[in-house]
Amino acid sequence: MANLDSVFQCLSDATRRAIIAQLSTGPAVVSELAAPHDMALPSFLKHLRILEAGGWIESTKSGRVRTCRLRPEAARAAEDWLGQQRRTWEARLDRLDDFLANQSDKKEAP
Amino acid sequence: MANLDSVFQCLSDATRRAIIAQLSTGPAVVSELAAPHDMALPSFLKHLRILEAGGWIESTKSGRVRTCRLRPEAARAAEDWLGQQRRTWEARLDRLDDFLANQSDKKEAP
Repeated sequence: MANLDSVFQCLSDATRRAIIAQLSTGPAVVSELAAPHDMALPSFLKHLRILEAGGWIESTKSGRVRTCRLRPEAARAAEDWLGQQRRTWEARLDRLDDFLANQSDKKEAP
Repeated sequence: MANLDSVFQCLSDATRRAIIAQLSTGPAVVSELAAPHDMALPSFLKHLRILEAGGWIESTKSGRVRTCRLRPEAARAAEDWLGQQRRTWEARLDRLDDFLANQSDKKEAP
């Protein structure tokens, strides 16, 4: 079970969202991930650690090269939570529509 | 355009997610929203201010009573971003499937 606090915390930073977007196209090594960001490596590695702790990525090391991969579980947990709120919200709007249609029918009745 | 940093920051706290879930069933006054939470009112109001700044809720005051409503734009921005990553990810898996099927065909060919 993913921890939603840290799953969403990971997404509250543009650098981390860019890393996730890059990894959704496939695994990448740390130097490829760091290249687009104008940031000192230690700061960049901190973002990777936060993403790993939040369940968004996993990494494996071969020699001096670390490869990162996206884990789909975190995205699924985030989408599930948002989808649940949307369904509740839409169900409420449907009931509201029914209510208003009903009121309008009553008005039109002779 | 919603600021995704603050949109997702709002969701990184269980109290704020509970407020959003409650408001997805319809508007509510502050006392109704605060009731389920064992928290001092100033702390609770701070969460409401964060949600308002993040674009998740709006509120109107009538006399001493403040009513909060969910704004669907923030949820839409969050779902859009997550959906974009999922589509990229799924497209990659489809290409991987095609590649593997292709390799398998080649092996089976005489």
